[in-house]
Amino acid sequence: MDSIAFLGLGTMGGPMAGHLVKAGFPLTAYNRSAERAQAWQSRYQAPLAETPAEAAASAHWLITCVGRDADLEAVLLGSQGAAHGLPRGATVIDHSTVSANMAQHIAATLAERGIHFLDAPVSGGQAGAERGQLSIMVGGPAPIFEQALPILRVYGKTVERMGEVGSGQRAKMVNQICIAGILQSLAEALNFAEQAELDIEAVLKVITQGAAASWQMQNRSASMLQGFYDHGFAVDWMRKDLGLCLDEAERIQAPLPVTALVDQFYADVQNLGGGRWDTSSLLVRLQTLRKKS
Amino acid sequence: MDSIAFLGLGTMGGPMAGHLVKAGFPLTAYNRSAERAQAWQSRYQAPLAETPAEAAASAHWLITCVGRDADLEAVLLGSQGAAHGLPRGATVIDHSTVSANMAQHIAATLAERGIHFLDAPVSGGQAGAERGQLSIMVGGPAPIFEQALPILRVYGKTVERMGEVGSGQRAKMVNQICIAGILQSLAEALNFAEQAELDIEAVLKVITQGAAASWQMQNRSASMLQGFYDHGFAVDWMRKDLGLCLDEAERIQAPLPVTALVDQFYADVQNLGGGRWDTSSLLVRLQTLRKKS
Repeated sequence: MDSIAFLGLGTMGGPMAGHLVKAGFPLTAYNRSAERAQAWQSRYQAPLAETPAEAAASAHWLITCVGRDADLEAVLLGSQGAAHGLPRGATVIDHSTVSANMAQHIAATLAERGIHFLDAPVSGGQAGAERGQLSIMVGGPAPIFEQALPILRVYGKTVERMGEVGSGQRAKMVNQICIAGILQSLAEALNFAEQAELDIEAVLKVITQGAAASWQMQNRSASMLQGFYDHGFAVDWMRKDLGLCLDEAERIQAPLPVTALVDQFYADVQNLGGGRWDTSSLLVRLQTLRKKS
Repeated sequence: MDSIAFLGLGTMGGPMAGHLVKAGFPLTAYNRSAERAQAWQSRYQAPLAETPAEAAASAHWLITCVGRDADLEAVLLGSQGAAHGLPRGATVIDHSTVSANMAQHIAATLAERGIHFLDAPVSGGQAGAERGQLSIMVGGPAPIFEQALPILRVYGKTVERMGEVGSGQRAKMVNQICIAGILQSLAEALNFAEQAELDIEAVLKVITQGAAASWQMQNRSASMLQGFYDHGFAVDWMRKDLGLCLDEAERIQAPLPVTALVDQFYADVQNLGGGRWDTSSLLVRLQTLRKKS
């Protein structure tokens, strides 16, 4: 089996790299914080590298799963970046959620060294990563995508090519735009139902049958009403993603008025101390705004 | 079987009354426009009345399905209104979408005459009415609700009691609040995907698997992208419903910022000539706003 270097062993990357080890791929891992790297190693018994470049040496595939544009650029193109170690003909697969511009910039820079690139952001959250059931939206050349499928299917339930480099990131943005509006309207609806003193369970029993139904309504209404906001994907990260959406939307002339407003509401949630709460915590903001009696 | 008077033979009421006739209930119908009443009669062969009061005479159940608060008040409490003909002990079931205040006002007025009242707005649209598969959200006393069930189940797939009078209307508002935000965010997402020149079919294949999924995405994305906006429930009626939501929200102190914004966008759609288009036509507004090249 092809050798893999995996950079970024966080909440998402850690279990994804673990699935590859369990599937039998020879894998070398790297993580910026050594503590997290060692915790991962003690669980999966695979070798660690000291730098991205060291991890990349002799790898056929290099997979990244980091936080922001600057993190990705550093880990790939920085002074000890993976690009310095990676052999010609190798392919980089990036699972980070970053800007489409950064994906295109990295693809172009790697191409000069004879290295292929796929942008491949994921959805499905921590639970999806742990169960190996992620959805993966891929941008890049079709033949390279085909070659990557046996790897991506190790932790991807749905793996689809969206178009050229950058289109994986843009597809992820489409996903986040939908989620932002759905969650705010669900929060408005549940806050309204609470203030109206309705039998909310009965209301949901009816409206989940019809045109108002959503994954979020099905999976988050009950926990929102209980004030449970520990489902994973945090408001701080959602704001990063919505920032990417709003920048790209400006560039391609696609106005996002509701998405922009919900981003502002997430800023309120951060101010309320909820940066680490999950994205369904928009209800807290409305509850906090209630008239004090 | 108990005799029924049915007032309002429109897109929704017509097929609902038809299902009751087919189920064997002795039914007398009334519609404000005589033309529509006669078309209905030639299909279902049930007697018509000249006035609401005449239809109501000797009915055990009186069912209304009209447009707005003023229509409901006129047909029940007006000079030839049904309240003048209805015997003591009868029950009025209202399937119109009106304000919770109007439902409470009518219930109180009818109670003085010994007549019961249930507010019972429906969702499921024209298709749901024709197939007898509506969702019905009911407000009113539990014993009266229980007695009404054999009638409501004739055209209701899901029939639930939400609480006291007015809570059926408030539950319907919860439904419309969710739909407004979902449709605008779906419109923003599809417009973004078009402007980004993504393979939208591939994008939807992935994101309908996860946290961005909704009934609207599943059932309306394709027709929105084709510019088909003839699915039934019209923007003009949605604006009526959102107006009810915003009024009630003000009264119960439940802010609806995104719902209010989407209502304004529907006003734009009306200005674009789309008052009769269905509610998924928010995409047209965004397409119209594109930079002319």
